[in-house]
Amino acid sequence: MPQTLARPVADLIEAFSRLPGIGPKTASRLTFFLLREPEDAALKLAEALQALRAGTVLCEQCFNITERSPCPICADATRDHGVICVVEEPLDVLAIERSGVYRGVYHVLHGALSPIDGIYPEKLRIRELVERVRSAALREIVLATNPSLEGENTAAFIHQQLEWAGISITRLARGLPVGGDLEYADAITLARALEGRRAM
Amino acid sequence: MPQTLARPVADLIEAFSRLPGIGPKTASRLTFFLLREPEDAALKLAEALQALRAGTVLCEQCFNITERSPCPICADATRDHGVICVVEEPLDVLAIERSGVYRGVYHVLHGALSPIDGIYPEKLRIRELVERVRSAALREIVLATNPSLEGENTAAFIHQQLEWAGISITRLARGLPVGGDLEYADAITLARALEGRRAM
Repeated sequence: MPQTLARPVADLIEAFSRLPGIGPKTASRLTFFLLREPEDAALKLAEALQALRAGTVLCEQCFNITERSPCPICADATRDHGVICVVEEPLDVLAIERSGVYRGVYHVLHGALSPIDGIYPEKLRIRELVERVRSAALREIVLATNPSLEGENTAAFIHQQLEWAGISITRLARGLPVGGDLEYADAITLARALEGRRAM
Repeated sequence: MPQTLARPVADLIEAFSRLPGIGPKTASRLTFFLLREPEDAALKLAEALQALRAGTVLCEQCFNITERSPCPICADATRDHGVICVVEEPLDVLAIERSGVYRGVYHVLHGALSPIDGIYPEKLRIRELVERVRSAALREIVLATNPSLEGENTAAFIHQQLEWAGISITRLARGLPVGGDLEYADAITLARALEGRRAM
């Protein structure tokens, strides 16, 4: 950046640029937008950022991000606690909830196996899932990891870890485009994928 | 947003969504990115946002955003203080500095005239520009407002306000963008390029 840029302006452009999908041009545009807006706009965003970690915890049961544990879904007695849907990320829970056809509970792994990136089973919430299966009366585990290489490997690994339990283990139907990302699937595709889930 | 989203997460998605060009999907992606990153990432961005206004002022001479007034350009005795380039936004100063051919000083209007949006002359730094012209020995004013309807109107208005001064008032040349393709140029740009043709 040329020296004509005030340090705090350059710093914010730099901070925005570190976010995924935001290049230096977008970062400049956002920064100068906030300089033009009433000061409130930048401060509200700052507050929301500070509250993000301070105001959230992981649910002790499903490991979704929540304000207090257990999360509203785990605490909901009207949901089917005999079925657990295993997903990679909290956004995947949202996507499946939006499809409106799933009434069970969830388990958020916080990632997918990827040894090349150093993501081994112990980095994910797989041990905790096995523990849940051991200690509760379950009928079914729906493996809803992404239809990507890492997601498939993660599903296969979890399947293997849970075979002893003798419960139904299913995978979302291939209504999802291979190589795609679950969080971007539209509600109807996701609903079909849930309805068409098959035994592994 | 479904009720399964923790309040601080929904709040940050909402705050990101208010930024220009950031829709709800991008806002979600940014929020969950920050949840996965070390807490530091969100807090650093928050700090940069808080410092944005606290650490910057407007230059009392050119009204560019700067850490202290006068800004480095206005304070630079090696620049030509007899020429003022009038721009709409601080980012325009950066763009012109990057071109490397301008050695004068600037005047940032902070917008362009747009009566329909309530942007009248008194909302811009036009009075201050007239004052600068009155109190300094200038040779030229370069009107570098955008080549848009609002930019042209603003340039015409300023031209009219400064006619009494009897100094040279110029406007940036209109023509084909360097590296552009003639067949994709719009009719008005092409007309201006033809009108402004120069001997080789």
